[in-house]
Amino acid sequence: MNKIYVVGLGPGTAEMTTPEAMHALEDADTIIGYTVYLKLLDGKFDDKEQMSTPMMQEEKRCVMCFEEAMKGKKVAMICSGDAGIYGMASLMYEIGKNYPECELEIIPGITAATSGAAVLGAPLNHDFCVISLSDLLTPWEKIEKRLEYAAKADFAMAIYNPSSHKRADYLQKACDILLREIEPERPCGFVENIGREDTKATTCTLAELRDMKVNMFTTVFIGNSTAEIIGGKLVTKRGYPSERRAE
Amino acid sequence: MNKIYVVGLGPGTAEMTTPEAMHALEDADTIIGYTVYLKLLDGKFDDKEQMSTPMMQEEKRCVMCFEEAMKGKKVAMICSGDAGIYGMASLMYEIGKNYPECELEIIPGITAATSGAAVLGAPLNHDFCVISLSDLLTPWEKIEKRLEYAAKADFAMAIYNPSSHKRADYLQKACDILLREIEPERPCGFVENIGREDTKATTCTLAELRDMKVNMFTTVFIGNSTAEIIGGKLVTKRGYPSERRAE
Repeated sequence: MNKIYVVGLGPGTAEMTTPEAMHALEDADTIIGYTVYLKLLDGKFDDKEQMSTPMMQEEKRCVMCFEEAMKGKKVAMICSGDAGIYGMASLMYEIGKNYPECELEIIPGITAATSGAAVLGAPLNHDFCVISLSDLLTPWEKIEKRLEYAAKADFAMAIYNPSSHKRADYLQKACDILLREIEPERPCGFVENIGREDTKATTCTLAELRDMKVNMFTTVFIGNSTAEIIGGKLVTKRGYPSERRAE
Repeated sequence: MNKIYVVGLGPGTAEMTTPEAMHALEDADTIIGYTVYLKLLDGKFDDKEQMSTPMMQEEKRCVMCFEEAMKGKKVAMICSGDAGIYGMASLMYEIGKNYPECELEIIPGITAATSGAAVLGAPLNHDFCVISLSDLLTPWEKIEKRLEYAAKADFAMAIYNPSSHKRADYLQKACDILLREIEPERPCGFVENIGREDTKATTCTLAELRDMKVNMFTTVFIGNSTAEIIGGKLVTKRGYPSERRAE
């Protein structure tokens, strides 16, 4: 079997890349990924063959992995964050149907939901959901339904891709949907540039979040009904007060 | 300020513990955690003071961290998986209200949702939610509502604490709720003993999952409506077919 690693690098800094991910990259002959992610390697693997395709050409990039593996090379496809959370893992399995000789190994990484949460406090410290506001591959109506049900279910939330050049008002639209179910004072927050030198965490209310301008490198967090700002940190409780039987 | 690290070790193997987590433990004078988690350190930090409390005594364990920090020690509280996902981060912030001289730093780790997903395939490769079936700190009715709304929202799902000695039938009860919204053939799966030598992944349908006996070291995954079993792996697609405009 021709081995292909699908590797989650984590949020960006090598401090958050697991030894397992580094060992997979060391084991690989060829590293393939979106140009920006190859830069995350910080020159560490410049002795190896590196290949990439521009943004949006994910299918081409995946086919490239299998074609190189079929030449007998050990390939590592790199993703930022986790390989299986909005990463390339599922597309690799789909395209892999045409390459039965190739075997995939998924190497998990720290995703923005957990790395961003750690900077902001503990916003996801109970049942939570992760929703992307990108409607590139998902009908917007489906995203709206998810926001509505997530609010009804009192999930804490991590929101990925809250904004882009084409979708400057999507976070505002999302907050308007949440505000139908959630009080405007609900503690929220967002983290910009996770895992980079200029990481910045901001807490606010849901009403304030609605009017915030965030960039595409931002992860947004909505606390659940127990959430509280403690010393500037967004904290979702690990349980419901009346149920504090465990101690 | 007296620094306290709250460290997520990941699923268990050192291969999945980040350098950031290791550096925090190296920097600490005292490592505090549930006895089982201290064992995960595999003797690596036996030169440091280590303290623990039995299971269920989380509040005592957190107070212990602050009391030791107040003596001028640099303390690291360890959690398995991620520190902020069903971990000690939020309780540390709550108890920290009484210790304004102490500063918390949360170090994220690989949680079972992503490490389990990597073993099973790519079950969470679109919007997803994480739900714990433990009703120790959460009313069961709330858990039922979350399952219902998660199914209505077509979230992929990771289910933590699917079973325990006292709650042997909770997974079955959860599946019965999901089966009201989701077809019995829906691809699902579960991973036992993630990050240990005897890790075992199983795929099945939702109907089959209902009658599975799983232990408390199991994470269960429910694919969304696009999910498919590909070569024995559970794969939730990264988008919805009609919306494949991105390529």
